[in-house]
Amino acid sequence: MSKTKKNAIEPTRSHDYPKWYQEVIKAADLAENSVVRGCMVIKPWGYSIWENIQKILDKMIKDTGHQNFYFPMFVPLSFLAKEAEHVDGFAKECAVVTHHRLELNEKKELVPGGKLEEPLVIRPTSEAIIGEAYSKWINSYRDLPLLGNQWANVVRWEMRPRVFLRTTEFLWQEGHTAHSSSAEAIEETEKMLEVYRQLAEEYLAMPVILGKKTENEKFPGADVTYCLEAMMQDKKALQAGTSHFLGQHFAKAFDIKYLSKEGVEEYVWTTSWGVSTRLIGGLIMVHSDDDGLILPPKIAPIQVVIVPLIHKEENRNAILEFCSNIKASLNKEIRMEIDLQEKTPGERIWGWIKKGVPIRLEIGMKEVENNAVFMGRRDLQPSDKKSVNLNEFISNVSNLLDEIQSNLFNKANDFLKNNSHKASTKEEFCQYFQDEDKQGGFISAYWIGDEETEKYLKEEFKVTARCIPLTTPHQTGKCIFTGKDGAKLTIFARSY
Amino acid sequence: MSKTKKNAIEPTRSHDYPKWYQEVIKAADLAENSVVRGCMVIKPWGYSIWENIQKILDKMIKDTGHQNFYFPMFVPLSFLAKEAEHVDGFAKECAVVTHHRLELNEKKELVPGGKLEEPLVIRPTSEAIIGEAYSKWINSYRDLPLLGNQWANVVRWEMRPRVFLRTTEFLWQEGHTAHSSSAEAIEETEKMLEVYRQLAEEYLAMPVILGKKTENEKFPGADVTYCLEAMMQDKKALQAGTSHFLGQHFAKAFDIKYLSKEGVEEYVWTTSWGVSTRLIGGLIMVHSDDDGLILPPKIAPIQVVIVPLIHKEENRNAILEFCSNIKASLNKEIRMEIDLQEKTPGERIWGWIKKGVPIRLEIGMKEVENNAVFMGRRDLQPSDKKSVNLNEFISNVSNLLDEIQSNLFNKANDFLKNNSHKASTKEEFCQYFQDEDKQGGFISAYWIGDEETEKYLKEEFKVTARCIPLTTPHQTGKCIFTGKDGAKLTIFARSY
Repeated sequence: MSKTKKNAIEPTRSHDYPKWYQEVIKAADLAENSVVRGCMVIKPWGYSIWENIQKILDKMIKDTGHQNFYFPMFVPLSFLAKEAEHVDGFAKECAVVTHHRLELNEKKELVPGGKLEEPLVIRPTSEAIIGEAYSKWINSYRDLPLLGNQWANVVRWEMRPRVFLRTTEFLWQEGHTAHSSSAEAIEETEKMLEVYRQLAEEYLAMPVILGKKTENEKFPGADVTYCLEAMMQDKKALQAGTSHFLGQHFAKAFDIKYLSKEGVEEYVWTTSWGVSTRLIGGLIMVHSDDDGLILPPKIAPIQVVIVPLIHKEENRNAILEFCSNIKASLNKEIRMEIDLQEKTPGERIWGWIKKGVPIRLEIGMKEVENNAVFMGRRDLQPSDKKSVNLNEFISNVSNLLDEIQSNLFNKANDFLKNNSHKASTKEEFCQYFQDEDKQGGFISAYWIGDEETEKYLKEEFKVTARCIPLTTPHQTGKCIFTGKDGAKLTIFARSY
Repeated sequence: MSKTKKNAIEPTRSHDYPKWYQEVIKAADLAENSVVRGCMVIKPWGYSIWENIQKILDKMIKDTGHQNFYFPMFVPLSFLAKEAEHVDGFAKECAVVTHHRLELNEKKELVPGGKLEEPLVIRPTSEAIIGEAYSKWINSYRDLPLLGNQWANVVRWEMRPRVFLRTTEFLWQEGHTAHSSSAEAIEETEKMLEVYRQLAEEYLAMPVILGKKTENEKFPGADVTYCLEAMMQDKKALQAGTSHFLGQHFAKAFDIKYLSKEGVEEYVWTTSWGVSTRLIGGLIMVHSDDDGLILPPKIAPIQVVIVPLIHKEENRNAILEFCSNIKASLNKEIRMEIDLQEKTPGERIWGWIKKGVPIRLEIGMKEVENNAVFMGRRDLQPSDKKSVNLNEFISNVSNLLDEIQSNLFNKANDFLKNNSHKASTKEEFCQYFQDEDKQGGFISAYWIGDEETEKYLKEEFKVTARCIPLTTPHQTGKCIFTGKDGAKLTIFARSY
C-alpha cells in the first residue's frame, strides 16, 4: 500500500507555490473555474466545507443576538451613490444590470431589450440597500440596537481572479447593525472581530493577528476597519475577515435617525462585518502539504474514512461487516464514511489523502482477524501508519481528532511566530523583503503612516501595511522610515 | 386580557382576500416590498421560516443521495440560447448585465461603463450553466447518476409582483441530475416529487395534489413537468413545486455524453426540480385566519412562547423565575422563548397571535401560586384559553404540538376535498366559475387538451388546467368540451 517517496501534488510548495495551490484544489476536487470569467463553481467537497463554516458561524452570530434576514441583490445606482467614499471604492468593480429582457434584433440575433430607467448594481456589499431599510425600521431608541445578518452572494468584478481568493462572485455573510452610541457600535465591531477570531483559530486552526487597517486600506465608508490577518505558508498575508465601525457615514447618507429617551432626534451609529468563501482559500494555504489538502477535524466534511481493502472475494462479507461495525460503534457525532468506490486501493487511499480527511482506517482481513484498525493520520506522513486495537481506537477517537486539531493549529502558529519579526531600522526592514523567495513574513515596525513610504514599499517590494495590531494599541515610537515621533507599530507583509 | 370580538387583521378574508394576505404579512412582520421594484426584503420572522424549510428539505435531499454545490449566478447569453424552448420561455423575464463598472460621463453623472463583450443573464434557473459543466464532468457510466443540488437566488423579471408569490428575485433550491436511462431519470423526477409532497404535507401541513402539467404549462425544455398543486382559502390553486423530466433536451444542447458499459457513446437523461420562497406564500394562505398568521408547529420558529404578565412589581421575580423553570423543564428540542418585551400585555399576546406561534402561555401570579399555565392555542379561537397544571402541560406538550400539526392539515385537507368537484358536462363546468366569488375550487373534467378550449377558459373565467393528477394516470374518457374520446381527467382552477 505504501508509495515510493513521491509527492501527490506537482509542483510542490517550494517549487511553485501559486501552481501548487491550484493543484491542491484540483486534486481535492474543491472547485473549478467557470466558463463565466472570474467566477468559480464550488464543487461538493468544497461546498460541504463552506456548509460547515456556515453552520458554526451562523450559531455564533445568533448566540450573540443577531437575526438573519435577506435583502435584494440589486442596489439602484442612485442608492450606491449616496455615500461618496463608498461608491468611489466600489465603482470600478460593479456588475451593472441595464435591461430586463432579451429580444431579437433585425438580424435575428438575441440581444438585451427593455432598458431600465435606472441601472441596478449587483450588490458588492449591502450597506446602501440595508441602510435605506434601516432608516424606515428605526424610529425610537426602543428599536436599537438593530442586529441583522445575511448569507448572500456578492459581486465585485475581478480582473485577476483566483479560485476562492478573488472571484467575481463569492459567497459570504454580512452583518449590519445600528446603535444609539458610538461606544456601543465600537463594542459590537470588536465583539464580531472576536467571533471571527474564534472561528479562525478554534475551528479552522488558523492563527490570526487582530488589528486595525491603516487609512488607505480601510473599507470605503468606514471610520475604522478591524481585520484578521493570517499567514500563508509562502509567508504572505491573507485578510481573513473584516469588521467595520462605520461611524455615522451611512446614518447621514441614508438618514437613519431615532428619537432618544430624552426626546431628541439623533443619528444612529452603524457597523458591518463579513467573512467569505475566501476563508477556504486560507484554510488550504495554511495547512496543506505536498500531498494535498489537510483539513482540521472540526471543519472536515468527513472526519474518519473507513477504506475496506478486499484482496480475496471470499473475505468481502467479513470485511464489510467489520467496517459496518466500526461505523456503528463510533459516536454518531463523528462524521464518517465507508469508502465503497470501485477503484484500486492506492487510488482510494491517495484520494482521501488529497481530500484532507483527518483519519483513514484501512481494513483488510488482517484487521478483522486481529480486531484492529490500520490507521493513518493526515497530519503525519502518509507512510506513517500503525495498527491500533479496535476498542482502543473507538474509545480514543474523539481525543485523537482533538489532538490533530491542536497539532494543526500549533504548527501554523509556530510558523506565524517564526516568520514574524520586528525591524528597528529601514535597512533592516528592507532586508526582509529584498529577496522575494527566501525571507518576507510579517515585519512590524514603527511607521507614521505617510503616503510616500506606502508608495515606495508597494512599488519596490510589493509590500503593504497589513494592520496596526490590537495587542499594542497605545504604544508609539519613532518612525523607521521618516524619523518622526508618534508612529504606530504596524505589521507589513506581501499579501493576497 | 381577552379582547372584544374584533379581528386583528383588516380587511378579513371574506372582505378582501388579496389585501388580507398583505396585511397578514405586515402584521406578522414577515417581509416587505423593497425599493427595488418587484423585489422583497425577507424580514427575520419570515427568514427563520425559510431557514426551517431549508433545514428539513436539505436533509431530505441529502438523504436521497444528492450533494450540494454552487454555480455562478451569471449565464452567458449564448449558453442560455443553446436550448431553443428554454430561451424562448425565459427571454421575456431576464435581468441582463451589460457593464462591469460605473464611470462618470461628461456631465459628471455616474453611468454604466466597461461594456461586456457578451451580455450575462442572471440565472432564471441554472440548466444551461450546469449543463455545460456536466458535459465536462461526465465521461463514463461510472460518473452516473450525477446527483446535484444548489440553494441559490434566481431572477425572473416580474411585471405584477406579489410578496412571496411572485417576486423578481426569489430564493430556492434547484436539483439537477443526470442518468444513464430514461426510466432512471423518470424515477428520480417522481422521487423528488414525493420528497416535496412530504415537505408540503408532513411539515407545512399543506395538502397537495400531485400531477403532470399539460403541454402548454410545462417547463421550457422539459419532456414532462410534474407538479404539486395546493388550494388556498380563496379556492385558487398555488403551484407549490415542480419536478421536471428533461429527456435529452439539455443533454443534446450541451453535449452531455457518456461511454456506456458496452463502450457506446450515449447522451444522458436529465432532471431538474425546485421549490422556492413561494412556499411561504402558500403557507400563509392555507392556514392563516382573520387574526393573522397560523404556523404549523413543525415549521414555526417559536413553538411555545411564554408571556410573563407582571401586574405588581413585587411579583416580578417570582413570575420570571417560574417562567425560567418552565423553559428549563421543557424538552430542549422544543423551540421556545420567554417574551420580555416592554409592551402592554395585550400588545404582546396579540403580537404572538399575529405571528402565528402555536402555543402561548400567559403566566401571572395566579399561575405561580397554582403551579399552572394559562394556555392559548393558535389553532383555536384567541379567547379559547384554559388553565392547565404545569406538570401535565410539560408531559403533554409534544403531543399537543403534534395535535395542532394534525388539526391544521386535516382542516386544510377538508377544505380541499370540499371544494374539489367533478364536472361531467361543459355547462356544469362553467357553473363552477361563473360567479367569481362564490364557487370555483378544483374542478376535474375529461379534456382532450385543445388550444381553443384552453383559450376560452382563460379568457372567459381566468381558469387554467392545473394538472393531470397522478392518481388516475391511465383513465381516459370523452372530452366534455369537444366530445372527443381519449381525453384525460384534468384539474382546472383559477391560480396564483
